[in-house]
Amino acid sequence: MTKLLHHKLDPSSRLIRLIFAEYDHKIDLEEASPYKSSQNLIEIDPIANVPLLIEEKTSPIIGSLAIVHHIEDIYQQEHNSLIPKNAAERAEMWRLFEWVMGKFNDEVSRYFLEEKIGKREQKIGAPDPKVLRAAKINLIEHEKYFAYLFETRNWFAGKDLTLADFALGAHLSCLDYLGEIDWFNVGETKNWYARLKSRPAFRSLLSDRIIGMPASKHYTDLDF
Amino acid sequence: MTKLLHHKLDPSSRLIRLIFAEYDHKIDLEEASPYKSSQNLIEIDPIANVPLLIEEKTSPIIGSLAIVHHIEDIYQQEHNSLIPKNAAERAEMWRLFEWVMGKFNDEVSRYFLEEKIGKREQKIGAPDPKVLRAAKINLIEHEKYFAYLFETRNWFAGKDLTLADFALGAHLSCLDYLGEIDWFNVGETKNWYARLKSRPAFRSLLSDRIIGMPASKHYTDLDF
Repeated sequence: MTKLLHHKLDPSSRLIRLIFAEYDHKIDLEEASPYKSSQNLIEIDPIANVPLLIEEKTSPIIGSLAIVHHIEDIYQQEHNSLIPKNAAERAEMWRLFEWVMGKFNDEVSRYFLEEKIGKREQKIGAPDPKVLRAAKINLIEHEKYFAYLFETRNWFAGKDLTLADFALGAHLSCLDYLGEIDWFNVGETKNWYARLKSRPAFRSLLSDRIIGMPASKHYTDLDF
Repeated sequence: MTKLLHHKLDPSSRLIRLIFAEYDHKIDLEEASPYKSSQNLIEIDPIANVPLLIEEKTSPIIGSLAIVHHIEDIYQQEHNSLIPKNAAERAEMWRLFEWVMGKFNDEVSRYFLEEKIGKREQKIGAPDPKVLRAAKINLIEHEKYFAYLFETRNWFAGKDLTLADFALGAHLSCLDYLGEIDWFNVGETKNWYARLKSRPAFRSLLSDRIIGMPASKHYTDLDF
């Protein structure tokens, strides 16, 4: 059976879980930490990180881009592909996928996650309020851009659900767990997230809990 | 004709130029700056950045992931594909592609480029020696890892030339222009780079010059 080494609040791990769930392919989950070099990661590759996919008959597949392409090569079927057929929509999907996994991660998510989760797991003190404030300012700018896009489109990259929706959903759901998203100030993004969150693929993420770090009150609510 | 809005010392722009050249598809180049909001970028999309590809009959294609996939969809032919047929090699290619474009960029390239090119273009002072020192320390760690990989493989992701080679070549060539690579201390990476640099696809990069910022002495030498 397919096994994913993941971290519950790692956006890239969540992206992979969402895609597998959307494609209705069941996987085993095994926790690993990107902040501490978990034994299960070190055994595979000293510098490996989550997400890491283990399948029979092939070497471990490491990193979100490798796993995303692997899933598309193997598990995607005509009727449920998350990659648009139309070239312009496909380009828009990759643009936004890169935006979220690169720019949004660099300017927003990783700061919240390193400060709130990373420092806690490494036991190296409390989050730095200056870093969190800077990340929050960046978050608001990105939220404005997402709201602008959702004013004219149903899904993140256009008229269809694509990998880009799950990339953004993976990131926002981590920040939402931490209570960082003010859903009254994100415009149409809220309606989009409500639709994404109510998909069966999202269910397993909503039951994630980190011991000693409760989720925000509305984290599991489909009507938030 | 295909037109690429690019910056001469932007690794993602260089990656796209290399792939087009390797696939023997001629393109027009037009300079744009990721540091100043160039007019030619703003006209297309206020938040657009390089690389940006303009083709007839389709909307502009923005960002390296979107352009890489577009090129693979349109210009790649069986005989010259830079994506391996074998699943394990493909996974290794994407792992290293993500490593270079994500981790290496975040920890190394972007610091050198922002400090040395970005500050100069924005006229906001001299590079910060503390930032450059930190980037150099990170660079050396990455170089050790690359050297370790090249001890047992011809090309970056295995036995064949792939997109991952051009990703790494694009980044290292920018740092080499700036004189940041100490080729006597990178082990087998030097031989790999010499082979990559002598490919016809690399030629146009080697003739790039930034006014007022000369390339390192050995930048164009095939025997360095």
